[in-house]
Amino acid sequence: MNQPSSALLTDLYQLTMLHGYLQQRMEDTAVFEFFVRQLPPRRGFLVAAGLEQALSYLENLRFMPWELDWIAQSSRFSTALVEYLTQFRFTGDVHAMPEGTVFFPDEPILRVTAPLPQAQLVETRLINLLHFQTLIASKAVRAVLAAPGKELVDFGLRRAHGEEAGLLAARASYLVGFSGTATVQAWALFGVPVYGTVAHSFIQAHEDEMEAFEHFALAQPNHVVLLLDTYDTEAAARKVVALAPRLQKRGITIKGVRLDSGNLADHARRVRRILNDGGLPHVRIVASGNLDEYAVQELMAVNAPIDSFAVGTHMTTSSDAPYLDCVYKLQEYAGRASRKRSEGKATWPGRKQVYRHDGAGGRMAYDVLTLADDPQDGTALIHPVMLEGRRLAPTPSLADVRARVAEELARLPEHLWRLQDSPPYQVRVSQALRDLAKACDERH
Amino acid sequence: MNQPSSALLTDLYQLTMLHGYLQQRMEDTAVFEFFVRQLPPRRGFLVAAGLEQALSYLENLRFMPWELDWIAQSSRFSTALVEYLTQFRFTGDVHAMPEGTVFFPDEPILRVTAPLPQAQLVETRLINLLHFQTLIASKAVRAVLAAPGKELVDFGLRRAHGEEAGLLAARASYLVGFSGTATVQAWALFGVPVYGTVAHSFIQAHEDEMEAFEHFALAQPNHVVLLLDTYDTEAAARKVVALAPRLQKRGITIKGVRLDSGNLADHARRVRRILNDGGLPHVRIVASGNLDEYAVQELMAVNAPIDSFAVGTHMTTSSDAPYLDCVYKLQEYAGRASRKRSEGKATWPGRKQVYRHDGAGGRMAYDVLTLADDPQDGTALIHPVMLEGRRLAPTPSLADVRARVAEELARLPEHLWRLQDSPPYQVRVSQALRDLAKACDERH
Repeated sequence: MNQPSSALLTDLYQLTMLHGYLQQRMEDTAVFEFFVRQLPPRRGFLVAAGLEQALSYLENLRFMPWELDWIAQSSRFSTALVEYLTQFRFTGDVHAMPEGTVFFPDEPILRVTAPLPQAQLVETRLINLLHFQTLIASKAVRAVLAAPGKELVDFGLRRAHGEEAGLLAARASYLVGFSGTATVQAWALFGVPVYGTVAHSFIQAHEDEMEAFEHFALAQPNHVVLLLDTYDTEAAARKVVALAPRLQKRGITIKGVRLDSGNLADHARRVRRILNDGGLPHVRIVASGNLDEYAVQELMAVNAPIDSFAVGTHMTTSSDAPYLDCVYKLQEYAGRASRKRSEGKATWPGRKQVYRHDGAGGRMAYDVLTLADDPQDGTALIHPVMLEGRRLAPTPSLADVRARVAEELARLPEHLWRLQDSPPYQVRVSQALRDLAKACDERH
Repeated sequence: MNQPSSALLTDLYQLTMLHGYLQQRMEDTAVFEFFVRQLPPRRGFLVAAGLEQALSYLENLRFMPWELDWIAQSSRFSTALVEYLTQFRFTGDVHAMPEGTVFFPDEPILRVTAPLPQAQLVETRLINLLHFQTLIASKAVRAVLAAPGKELVDFGLRRAHGEEAGLLAARASYLVGFSGTATVQAWALFGVPVYGTVAHSFIQAHEDEMEAFEHFALAQPNHVVLLLDTYDTEAAARKVVALAPRLQKRGITIKGVRLDSGNLADHARRVRRILNDGGLPHVRIVASGNLDEYAVQELMAVNAPIDSFAVGTHMTTSSDAPYLDCVYKLQEYAGRASRKRSEGKATWPGRKQVYRHDGAGGRMAYDVLTLADDPQDGTALIHPVMLEGRRLAPTPSLADVRARVAEELARLPEHLWRLQDSPPYQVRVSQALRDLAKACDERH
């Protein structure tokens, strides 16, 4: 994550096809679009994310000498291909929905317009980058919807699928409204605020739990959050009450306590009472341990006195829907629109645009999916972001994207706030697009 | 993946706790173990993987000047901590099960013995590395069990959770018996054999499907695998039959065809007949498209004439169980065994060993989980792999690990070959371990 990924981070067939395109001098303009074919179970909408990393990838894509040597030595490719790759730069255009845009199946969130070999080569990594952050943003936003006004923190690095997943999940969850992450490098790379408490091992390494609490407080006097469930949660809460005045004399205020096991609502209520009775009403309660949006929703429904939810594994793996049915499809080559007709996998051809229509109270009412050259009423969602390989505008700040997401959520139809069984949002396909699809099918 | 991950790829609380340990001079020897608490749904066993990356992480863990500056400037930590981190090297011991070992809940696959601050700091990334490859190896092996004698290939990079997930999934699936991957960089980094066919876009970019086939064959004359389902699968198969003699005259043999949509068993049967009738019985049929071990098992059960299964998203995300309930727990500090008692999360204390006992026909019969200093009959599974920060032996080759997995699978009890509802394998907990747990609980 500190440096661009290797140009070899791709499928073999991209290089193979490039070879074929170059051999046949097929270097006319191609248009590919990235979109999701259908929503995963329980999802009513998706949130676009990953554009920043996708653009950065396109800007920086180069074949390094060792990579070129390696391709040359693989004995699968011609020297002509190696020469082409030596010079490779992405010089195409990109149109996209801004990060943080709510979107639906069949609506492209990114369009690449470039000479065919270029647009083809970038397929694998573009999907890899757009898929993951969109997946996580679309999962994390559900916890945000489930816990209005509460603090949500990403604790998921350890069980994220590797390094990049951990870092980008911290970013994607912050984009949609999480307050921060426990991942230090996400703070360093992206400026995501960092949060932390203490682990059971710290408590266990001490002979005495109270002593462990005191030592931790001395180590982080401005950020004291103590973990209560190593042995007995309520007994530990009483130790916190006993310790607080001693720490206060040294100028240290206990900020919070964390519950990590058992019935979190019950423990939170008992601990809240112990803390309040002990003169510590300001001490916040953080809950963690196998939380997802469903668990958060239940805790909210019973008014558990929890101030902050640490959401880990379920969010960083999008555990109930760990992938999106997304694709990057050729929509047009050399001015000729196309689509595949594969059973159950047919897609809409051509360069597309999405127009969003508002209804009552400024809420989203329906979208229209049409061709880019078929202007319609409503708000166009897809905009140029890169021309001839150069970005048109500086990267929006994460704060800007967060503000966009907050606006989007405020405009969501009420039924899309549900965590499941939401009636589908309407995406109307224009006549122009239907006509083009029919014309394509008649050609084959 | 080309260089070590950043030392900042960790949870904030690791640094915080380090700070506390140093402040209190708690630098005695700590023992942590990594294990899985319970099997995910439908899994009967797990396969250990990721040790190679874990050891490499421990060997290479350093704080770079920019990382130290960054920690210093964060204003959360003392200069004493920064000085400690400047000198940081992992100097501890590691005991582990070799990669490719079949294992069960509560059995540690890795033990770290090191000064407490060192053993603590490495927690997050060690879990991150061991969790992911073990998850994927344990998923991919199920496709191997479902399709004995068939070729299996990883096509999952595009929907893997980021760069590292894609690369390590290619490695982990190869370890357990996949034939290779489509990911070029996994070939370059790990030597995993690379496979590829052609995408729908290549076919669509041509006006004529037959011409597309011919151009692809010319581009990869030694690796011709043609994609049949862009428009009409059986019509495309007949084009292959028509094209084959023309290509043969130019010395090009069609090696295979790929089916990517529709009813794969039906298409495979019809295509097989068309190819055989057309004099192409040697042309192999590759199936892809949303495959997992369940779909593969069904195709095998109906004797679909498929020679090679390309398994992508479901394998690289372990889609039916995208995480393991794994932990890295303090088992002993300064000679004192410990465990947490958190509700539903209590674990076995102390340094442990696992002994495996064979039954009829050399098949695994049961395991005994006990203390490392409580020798038992059976085969010990945990061995020293690193002493004082140095590896004891060179990295085993992937071929060696693959051979180990093949042996392990041959020794699996028959019921563990089932893809679900397998009766649990017996892991007996020794009296010595039960006594120690009781003694720990009595202390708190």
